[in-house]
Amino acid sequence: MESRDSPSYSSCIFFICLSTLPIFVSAIDPRPQAQLRFHRNGEFKILQVADMHYANGNKTRCQDVLPEQMASCSDLNTTAFLERLIRLESPDLIVFTGDNIFYYAGNATSMDAAFSPAVSSRIPWAAVLGTHDRPSTLSSEEMMKHIVTMNGSLSQLNPPGYTIDGFGNYNLEVGGVEGSSLHNKSVLNLYFLDSGGTSDVPSIPGYDWIKLSQQLWFKRTSDELEKAFRKEPEPQKESAPGLVYFHIPLPEYATVKSSNIVSVKQENVKSASMNSGFFTTMKERGDVKAVFTGHDHINDFCGNLMGIHLCYGGGFGYNGYGKEGWARRARVVLAALEQTDEGAWGAVSSIKT
Amino acid sequence: MESRDSPSYSSCIFFICLSTLPIFVSAIDPRPQAQLRFHRNGEFKILQVADMHYANGNKTRCQDVLPEQMASCSDLNTTAFLERLIRLESPDLIVFTGDNIFYYAGNATSMDAAFSPAVSSRIPWAAVLGTHDRPSTLSSEEMMKHIVTMNGSLSQLNPPGYTIDGFGNYNLEVGGVEGSSLHNKSVLNLYFLDSGGTSDVPSIPGYDWIKLSQQLWFKRTSDELEKAFRKEPEPQKESAPGLVYFHIPLPEYATVKSSNIVSVKQENVKSASMNSGFFTTMKERGDVKAVFTGHDHINDFCGNLMGIHLCYGGGFGYNGYGKEGWARRARVVLAALEQTDEGAWGAVSSIKT
Repeated sequence: MESRDSPSYSSCIFFICLSTLPIFVSAIDPRPQAQLRFHRNGEFKILQVADMHYANGNKTRCQDVLPEQMASCSDLNTTAFLERLIRLESPDLIVFTGDNIFYYAGNATSMDAAFSPAVSSRIPWAAVLGTHDRPSTLSSEEMMKHIVTMNGSLSQLNPPGYTIDGFGNYNLEVGGVEGSSLHNKSVLNLYFLDSGGTSDVPSIPGYDWIKLSQQLWFKRTSDELEKAFRKEPEPQKESAPGLVYFHIPLPEYATVKSSNIVSVKQENVKSASMNSGFFTTMKERGDVKAVFTGHDHINDFCGNLMGIHLCYGGGFGYNGYGKEGWARRARVVLAALEQTDEGAWGAVSSIKT
Repeated sequence: MESRDSPSYSSCIFFICLSTLPIFVSAIDPRPQAQLRFHRNGEFKILQVADMHYANGNKTRCQDVLPEQMASCSDLNTTAFLERLIRLESPDLIVFTGDNIFYYAGNATSMDAAFSPAVSSRIPWAAVLGTHDRPSTLSSEEMMKHIVTMNGSLSQLNPPGYTIDGFGNYNLEVGGVEGSSLHNKSVLNLYFLDSGGTSDVPSIPGYDWIKLSQQLWFKRTSDELEKAFRKEPEPQKESAPGLVYFHIPLPEYATVKSSNIVSVKQENVKSASMNSGFFTTMKERGDVKAVFTGHDHINDFCGNLMGIHLCYGGGFGYNGYGKEGWARRARVVLAALEQTDEGAWGAVSSIKT
């Protein structure tokens, strides 16, 4: 069975408006060229794939599909769905927000198979670990090290110079349009964090949380990126927008008013039982416009909480729980640059999903 | 009018039980002698004074006292109440948890008058800043610097070697009984933090919160104290218990089940609108047994949340809102050491309030 689900997109849309930028200034900057860059049409598209739950390929049966689909459904349908989405969307970056594989069957072979459509596409991709990526035959560190070395992967193990919790805390910069005044600046900042597995503090039940060490890294990185964005040449007035990707939703996801939610909430938010303050840290820094998690497969909403959009990817893989008749899905984010009357590209003016 | 209120004590009691300790081992340790120490009766008593709201002495009228008390009631009653409590309780340490003075009238003179009963008593004391201690004619830094230099004050401006938010983040160690095996170890750790005033992040309304920098200091300090407690001579099996003092209650105060509360909750918890994760950081470290705040004058409860007791001091000063007919009050904590059959003193075995 080829995937019968039509690709389904969550419909929430949000905008950020940034100030008009100076144009046509030739930038000479010693910083290394960004690996990611906005297109000449002023756009950058990110495909988020959450919870593939890939296990043993055609030996792994599907969950919560229609009865007539069940007999022939396996992990191969997850692969087919991903291939189709990549073909249809042609994203500039694919982000896997954890539970990429399914733990008891998980190993390097599962990972290779799970990410193979991204590798084959030659589109850059990045991944973080979820709760079901650990434990497997590999430790979390080995798992992340494997991901880092795969073809096309922009993932990183951890930031140099930091003692940090977890594996797979890193950031990626997206440069302005080639030849534009912001060619040598990161106009869109992507942060990736390891939100862990289950709590290893005996008196705290449930899922893990973003630790102090990770927040400190985020805060310093966000601060450094802002300083770089504000400095010569082409000094900007405020931070470039940031998007944050990790697996387990924050406790704040549960506090978004239903009137501020776009798309569906069909299950309780399964966050950590503790609030470790990462939402506050992001608010303090002020650059983050949206957070993208997975973990809860049949929630696919975006909710605006105090100006930060808290979004789910929606369950992607067929070997993960879902809802019969409710299609597996993914989230596409399209960032667009501001264009002057003279046709030159500046900073990010809108981010839609 | 002398204070007519009888000193009122909140009645919640909690215990911690620590393992039996080795005894009669002579300790030779190069660490400087702790300024605070358990008595030869194995006890250490702390008097918490919250929200004195001291302003202009006899010129400052009282709030929410009985009609017949109003005419003659002023800040001098706050002073008389404090003198009486100190005389009755003979604490080993007095802790002022902020709103020591009342901002619009606040200056060094107000502070000198507010703390004068502690200074006169020659009992060591420590203070943190609240919301009403700022702004005054002095900046928060000047205010805390003044407090640090007062007679009997063990307060400190900030820990050396840290870039930290606020003024008045420090810790105090309480040594074991003189001549006992734990003479040269801190058997009770006291942490003091500046919980700030109001938010200076424009998009976040309301009160301030314990920042990442402060949590990092707390975490490292708690970790270092544990290492010292576990090392030779007299290596202990776990951390010494910690008590934490600051002004604004944590958001978690509002989540304690009413069945876990001792004494009264008569108003909503006026915490920050954001959760910055300090409760989680304390749970991660594991040494903190109780937190003591002020800020909400007519709450005086202790509530057990996941093993950490979240306590209020109860409003102390007459120039602060209260409840007519509900006496101004303070909190007394009594820590007691474990005693072996041979009569030797060990580590802390109970903390009661």
